[in-house]
Amino acid sequence: MSHEPKPLPPGATIGILGGGQLGRMLALAAARLGLKCHIYSDVADAPAFDCAAARTVAPYTDAAAIVRFAASVGAVTYEFENVPVAAADAAAPHAPVYPPREALARTQDRVIEKQLVAGLGLPVAPFEAIDGVAGLRDALKKVGPRPFLKTRRFGYDGKGQVVIEEGSDPAVALAALGGVPAILEGRVAFAREVSVIGVRGRDGEVRHYDTPHNTHEDGILRRSVIPSGLPERHQQRAREMATEIMVALGYVGVIGVEMFWLGEDASEPLVINEIAPRVHNSGHWTIDACGVSQFENHIRAVAGWPLGSTVRHSDCEMENLLGEETHGWASLAAERGTCIHLYGKSDARPGRKMGHVTRLRP
Amino acid sequence: MSHEPKPLPPGATIGILGGGQLGRMLALAAARLGLKCHIYSDVADAPAFDCAAARTVAPYTDAAAIVRFAASVGAVTYEFENVPVAAADAAAPHAPVYPPREALARTQDRVIEKQLVAGLGLPVAPFEAIDGVAGLRDALKKVGPRPFLKTRRFGYDGKGQVVIEEGSDPAVALAALGGVPAILEGRVAFAREVSVIGVRGRDGEVRHYDTPHNTHEDGILRRSVIPSGLPERHQQRAREMATEIMVALGYVGVIGVEMFWLGEDASEPLVINEIAPRVHNSGHWTIDACGVSQFENHIRAVAGWPLGSTVRHSDCEMENLLGEETHGWASLAAERGTCIHLYGKSDARPGRKMGHVTRLRP
Repeated sequence: MSHEPKPLPPGATIGILGGGQLGRMLALAAARLGLKCHIYSDVADAPAFDCAAARTVAPYTDAAAIVRFAASVGAVTYEFENVPVAAADAAAPHAPVYPPREALARTQDRVIEKQLVAGLGLPVAPFEAIDGVAGLRDALKKVGPRPFLKTRRFGYDGKGQVVIEEGSDPAVALAALGGVPAILEGRVAFAREVSVIGVRGRDGEVRHYDTPHNTHEDGILRRSVIPSGLPERHQQRAREMATEIMVALGYVGVIGVEMFWLGEDASEPLVINEIAPRVHNSGHWTIDACGVSQFENHIRAVAGWPLGSTVRHSDCEMENLLGEETHGWASLAAERGTCIHLYGKSDARPGRKMGHVTRLRP
Repeated sequence: MSHEPKPLPPGATIGILGGGQLGRMLALAAARLGLKCHIYSDVADAPAFDCAAARTVAPYTDAAAIVRFAASVGAVTYEFENVPVAAADAAAPHAPVYPPREALARTQDRVIEKQLVAGLGLPVAPFEAIDGVAGLRDALKKVGPRPFLKTRRFGYDGKGQVVIEEGSDPAVALAALGGVPAILEGRVAFAREVSVIGVRGRDGEVRHYDTPHNTHEDGILRRSVIPSGLPERHQQRAREMATEIMVALGYVGVIGVEMFWLGEDASEPLVINEIAPRVHNSGHWTIDACGVSQFENHIRAVAGWPLGSTVRHSDCEMENLLGEETHGWASLAAERGTCIHLYGKSDARPGRKMGHVTRLRP
């Protein structure tokens, strides 16, 4: 079956692998455009089900279910980067998959992701692939003090990583990760974390949103502030780097590229930290502060539509609501100038992303 | 069964009678707040079904279906003013209904609606209830030249009305409406049509959006422009009048009050034309130009939440996409600064509201 990259007309259905809050906000954006969504999730109470036209509950490893799903939609996308590549491959004969499987495959493994970035000549922290304790001991001599040991795969929100402190036993750190293939990453002394939310259309057009300044706590994004204070030259460079990555991957859709700014001075460089081949938490503010959000632009790209404006009409700050913070919804809803977004999750486990607020600054 | 007016918590379900574009945009707004929607429609392909957690297809006259629907939700609202009052009454023992049944009952009949407004001492065009040709002939002597003869009930978008031209036979006009109970309305020579989009919470708090300037073609709203050019004193008066109506009705939710500004001069008064007990087409721009849209504020009011900010961050113009105009979606989507909204309707009949665009002016 061939897949002409024809735009999906209003009324067509987009299939989304994953039913979390990102899938939910993608479904809401698709609905604005008159497009339907079919959500595929491995849990029965996926937040995105509440606002989707069609639902599949099945494991991501169920190839037959993936085939039925893909055959029912005009294009397939995904909302988390740990979708098995085999699922994308099972879908591909039945509907085009965006972002392309290479983006998924290469960002699922931290070593391969960093090799991609370094191979483009873009700055990354020093890193070494780790297959065992002996290799880890060697690598520790190369990457500088107090580095991060992370699983190569399936890490998110600070999970699957430990810091190797001076004088500690590396074998203990490796064991703490369960002995899986790992990556040792040098610690980058940075002044600010920023990110580029970029989007590339099927036709290769690229746009970016203004770069937010991100603050993490316990490995989880706490807030994004826009504008970031990053000098214009750095913003420009950050966008160029994100574009180079998108072009290298033949990318279609929204990408999140996290970067470190090493010092709050125009002479200090940016270093690329991580790539997310999907809509990104640090882009949630675009719903409230831009005419066309990252979610709508992802849907537009996947559907083969023209990209929408990424222009920002308001300064703002986005703050995540984690765990029981969501119980403050009534007072947050009463704040003037605050847009509240709740994800329909019932279990407010500690650290779980339950919603976010965007505070517009007039 | 008693109904304490407790706020609906995130995760609760709001029932919406009606599944058109207004129900669809209400469902999208509810999803932002972590609230589910159950849509009740008498057609199987209602646009709002595509983004709702639960669906009922049944006639509005099916009391048993209404009862099951109401029993499954935490509050009931409606998205069109011709929902039978009997449906609201069937729902009421099982869930609170907002806006209140009186708002529905009194705005379904143009005579009763105008009596309400006139009874508050607010300006309306001269009107006479018409029960037959003899009465019509008498009434024609009172209301001025070229008046409108309209059905008392079930009119919308210019349907169910005729102009009685000088020298024409009134009996023909009455027959053209099918001989149903009618109202004769004096023609108001106005300079501009404006509207107030107001919202009243369960606690009686009232807010308003900026007043749009509306242009109609063939009885259908063509565009709304904000700001309207209405002097501040008039805007203030328009808001006061809408508030008086809401208070008189014990209103909860968003209301649309259409008004005529008789001349483009600060000395010219406003005259109330029509009340819509629901979210209103002339408020669609609030999705893109305000932090909290009319749809979200309606949901907040119905759910007993604090009202959200009605502050506008951008000047803008909203234009409806009628019938085949929707086929221009690709070029509209490519316009810079344009937010496109399509309603998921497949049949682009002439004059049918298929979507709208909001053009933000930075």
